[in-house]
Amino acid sequence: MAYILQVDFKMDGPFGDEMAVGFKELAESINEEKGMLWKIWTEDAEAGEAGGIYLFETKETAAAYLEMHSKRLNGFGITAINSKIFSVNESLTKINNGPVNA
Amino acid sequence: MAYILQVDFKMDGPFGDEMAVGFKELAESINEEKGMLWKIWTEDAEAGEAGGIYLFETKETAAAYLEMHSKRLNGFGITAINSKIFSVNESLTKINNGPVNA
Repeated sequence: MAYILQVDFKMDGPFGDEMAVGFKELAESINEEKGMLWKIWTEDAEAGEAGGIYLFETKETAAAYLEMHSKRLNGFGITAINSKIFSVNESLTKINNGPVNA
Repeated sequence: MAYILQVDFKMDGPFGDEMAVGFKELAESINEEKGMLWKIWTEDAEAGEAGGIYLFETKETAAAYLEMHSKRLNGFGITAINSKIFSVNESLTKINNGPVNA
């Protein structure tokens, strides 16, 4: 069973194309994280917020990543972080074509 | 460009298989919602929380669904709802195999 990690936080930018350039290497490094299946990068330039939706293989790998990532965000000066780890209801998700078998 | 809607709230249950049976018809109806591309059903029985991660075609369809869904949840007695709508950073999401082209 896969687990969803949702993370969001206040951020002054960069957003959009500038964000894509600035965080390219960070994104590449995320592919090497244990248990990480995919990440959707989220942003709201108007609200000054950003974050990510991740799929992890296990609850433990999601929690370990969140601990590491929270410290990394703290290092960027970002301290007010919303985060939750959820299990996936697979039967209902299948009905709605949710991409959890990546 | 696709938009992520993330929703979560406190709930006493049902969870797991019982949730899958109880919300099957609701899930089927969600496939008919304008602009809805997919939904991942999330749950945390221990914390008494549930929710969903959705991909919508536009910000407007995500916002319209959220308004309708919030009222529906209120009707279930669920009033403390966390929700955010984010745009997707497509370049970074592509690096991490995020499933936003469903």
